[in-house]
Amino acid sequence: MPLLVVGSVALDSVETPQETRHNVLGGSAVFFSFAASYFTSVKLVSVVGDDWPDAHTQLLKSRNIDTAGLQVVPGEATFRWRGKYLPNMNDRETLEVHLNVFEHFDPVLPDDYRRSKFLFLANGAPMLQLKVLEQAGGAQLAVADTMDLWIREQRPALDQLLRRLDGLVLNDSEAKLLTGEENLVRAGHIVREMGPKFVVIKKGEHGAMFFSKHETYVLPAFPTEQVVDPTGAGDSFAGAMMGFLAERGEFDPVTLKKAMAYGIVVASYTVEAFSLDRLKGISRPEIDQRLSLYQKMLSF
Amino acid sequence: MPLLVVGSVALDSVETPQETRHNVLGGSAVFFSFAASYFTSVKLVSVVGDDWPDAHTQLLKSRNIDTAGLQVVPGEATFRWRGKYLPNMNDRETLEVHLNVFEHFDPVLPDDYRRSKFLFLANGAPMLQLKVLEQAGGAQLAVADTMDLWIREQRPALDQLLRRLDGLVLNDSEAKLLTGEENLVRAGHIVREMGPKFVVIKKGEHGAMFFSKHETYVLPAFPTEQVVDPTGAGDSFAGAMMGFLAERGEFDPVTLKKAMAYGIVVASYTVEAFSLDRLKGISRPEIDQRLSLYQKMLSF
Repeated sequence: MPLLVVGSVALDSVETPQETRHNVLGGSAVFFSFAASYFTSVKLVSVVGDDWPDAHTQLLKSRNIDTAGLQVVPGEATFRWRGKYLPNMNDRETLEVHLNVFEHFDPVLPDDYRRSKFLFLANGAPMLQLKVLEQAGGAQLAVADTMDLWIREQRPALDQLLRRLDGLVLNDSEAKLLTGEENLVRAGHIVREMGPKFVVIKKGEHGAMFFSKHETYVLPAFPTEQVVDPTGAGDSFAGAMMGFLAERGEFDPVTLKKAMAYGIVVASYTVEAFSLDRLKGISRPEIDQRLSLYQKMLSF
Repeated sequence: MPLLVVGSVALDSVETPQETRHNVLGGSAVFFSFAASYFTSVKLVSVVGDDWPDAHTQLLKSRNIDTAGLQVVPGEATFRWRGKYLPNMNDRETLEVHLNVFEHFDPVLPDDYRRSKFLFLANGAPMLQLKVLEQAGGAQLAVADTMDLWIREQRPALDQLLRRLDGLVLNDSEAKLLTGEENLVRAGHIVREMGPKFVVIKKGEHGAMFFSKHETYVLPAFPTEQVVDPTGAGDSFAGAMMGFLAERGEFDPVTLKKAMAYGIVVASYTVEAFSLDRLKGISRPEIDQRLSLYQKMLSF
């Protein structure tokens, strides 16, 4: 089944202890779409300025990502993010954020997009996420991501969103911030009690945790020696997870766990290079091969 | 097969954000022995002062731990450690260390101890660990732990020890310190190239990683809401791991991975209370039940 994602499209500048890249393709919806495209067809809704290289749109299209929902606004600049990774490659500092055209992004979904059954609300203000959710009222599975900024500054809207979601994906520090709870197992269930039927806490190099009413589990990251740029790992995790669920057309507990595993495996490719450089070089059989290595790694 | 452990026996004072306990039973060899005792008979070699409560010896004996090698030195005081956990319950500060009688500990193994096939060198100076290793020359499997102090201050002796070990267990920050490498996958293999046939990196709440020439894997911690006191988690991990290997009498890759899983499961009990309070209340069937939950958690 097709998967609809609404979120940011950006030009990133990334500093790592080894290397720096300027204005590379990034943004939550980009990493998400690209990862999901290995599993299902994706409809991308976002906005860019006229500084946006058309080659990026062509790259997305080459992976069967529908970019009809990607508005190009003349006279405006694309969202830009600049960040720096610490030597541990797990923590980072944001050096600059220019929301630019994304600041006033007000997505209006085309009619056929509104009938999407699988919906992901990637990084964006909770009010914007809510507006999209209202337009896509028939979604069977609506999952969102959030971030520290919205937890700190737009809590009432975020609370309203949480009550209407099927699933929420957030990282460990965000889960602690949202709940005031240091123990991640407790934090996960507290977030779940705020509304979503399931919660996924992403732990970067330490994997991801899953919480539903009847299940609590944790899966480790796929161990990799080559961590070049972790940007987009969380979004591509979510993309592969949602992509697999949409491919299967269901989200029972067994399918959800396998989706988590796919998310972890695809994210392990993302970090091996800057931007989409590694992700664009992989194939579904490669993903499946690494998934089966991962499955074997966890068997005893 | 019986398992020999040489290491510290201590009285710990532990502060957590919730509660403080003074002079409770602790020490690397104590947590190790107790955890291992669910799998095999254990011979404990260590030293205490005459402030050592005999009730602690009786508790160890009640679990089939042979304390004939536990010297009590009159006029001396037992090793004492005082530490404080940060709110995340994963990081801690050492507030006081009084080595006391442990400072000049010079273990001489009884004859029947020297024939032990499974040997664990728990926390102690590398020179001391080397001396024990020489006495137990017939060990089939000799594994050691180490810590930041020895990495910083006794590197030549530690390097000598590493060349003679079958396995080394250390935590993530120690692995980074020993190798100067931030990526744990690379760090694990660099340590392995220093001598040990296998290396285990303990990651606290994030589980443990295993490295041999042909294998690299990571297993997550068993998720628990109730983290009361993490002291001894790493030592009881090692105890259950070595205990299971000694019980099986082998250490092929399949047995080693199951041993790692037992280590993780037993450590998840340790953290649920202070000192041995939770460990002493469990049984082998309970351990096996949690192991099977853990195994199910990692299956998809």
